[in-house]
Amino acid sequence: KELKPLKIKKPLILVKDVETKPAIVASISESVESVAKKIVENNINHVPIVDKNNKLRGIVTSWDIANAVAEGTKKLEEIMTKRVITAKENEPIDVAARRMDKYNISGLPVVDKDNRVIGIVTAEDISRIIGREKK
Amino acid sequence: KELKPLKIKKPLILVKDVETKPAIVASISESVESVAKKIVENNINHVPIVDKNNKLRGIVTSWDIANAVAEGTKKLEEIMTKRVITAKENEPIDVAARRMDKYNISGLPVVDKDNRVIGIVTAEDISRIIGREKK
Ligand SMILES: C[S@@+](CC[C@H](N)C(=O)[O-])C[C@H]1O[C@@H](n2cnc3c(N)ncnc32)[C@H](O)[C@@H]1O
Repeated sequence: KELKPLKIKKPLILVKDVETKPAIVASISESVESVAKKIVENNINHVPIVDKNNKLRGIVTSWDIANAVAEGTKKLEEIMTKRVITAKENEPIDVAARRMDKYNISGLPVVDKDNRVIGIVTAEDISRIIGREKK
Repeated sequence: KELKPLKIKKPLILVKDVETKPAIVASISESVESVAKKIVENNINHVPIVDKNNKLRGIVTSWDIANAVAEGTKKLEEIMTKRVITAKENEPIDVAARRMDKYNISGLPVVDKDNRVIGIVTAEDISRIIGREKK
């Protein structure tokens, strides 16, 4: 009897297993300086912008702050990205990793079905999985 | 005869397999604005600071630029990190991932034995490995 190639099933890691929750967020009326302070104080790079119902309206990252410095702009609305690429809690983490790669971004706000921000998952969170895997 | 647990050998991925090479660098005499421009124009987050022999002297990231905005500082020397955590080309990538995790950073300049900057490896580069792995 012929041997079938062995299929190795790795445990499926989901977005909710590695996300940071809750996410530090900001409102669209905040200043660039205020968001920069949140980034520094919380040691993060990604700040989802939400409305008063916690629905996602945009994202500002430390890269956008660098952009504000490079351009000499001052308003949050001018530097924030409005079409935000997101993830869902029950998605496999490799799907989220491919999405980041595709759009050349390093973090995805995690949203519920009503587009409310639950958490955030970053390339750093995913990189950590490689660090903890046994060879 | 008892069965031993099956050991699965994954191909060893090294830093040199995923690094970006060469790295975009800056000199210590540049302004914060100039480094911010490099970050934006090259779509990156990490800029190693080198001397005229390409030896590593520090690192400035978009997070440090956000710090400059938060603090209202203006000089590169005040925001750059001088004790830089690095990687070597022939290190396994999971070792580099654990180092980033340990120091809570998102990128490591890749240096040769004389501390000259060869490239850079980031959490985004490592996250991409998870994206491409087959289940
Ligand atoms: C294109 S990336 C380039 C730098 C680097 N790859 C990174 O992710 O930081 C920078 C831009 O992506 C945007 N961005 C980051 N995360 C995003 C997301 N989840 N959805 C949409 N845009 C995002 C930021 O607002 C910023 O303007």
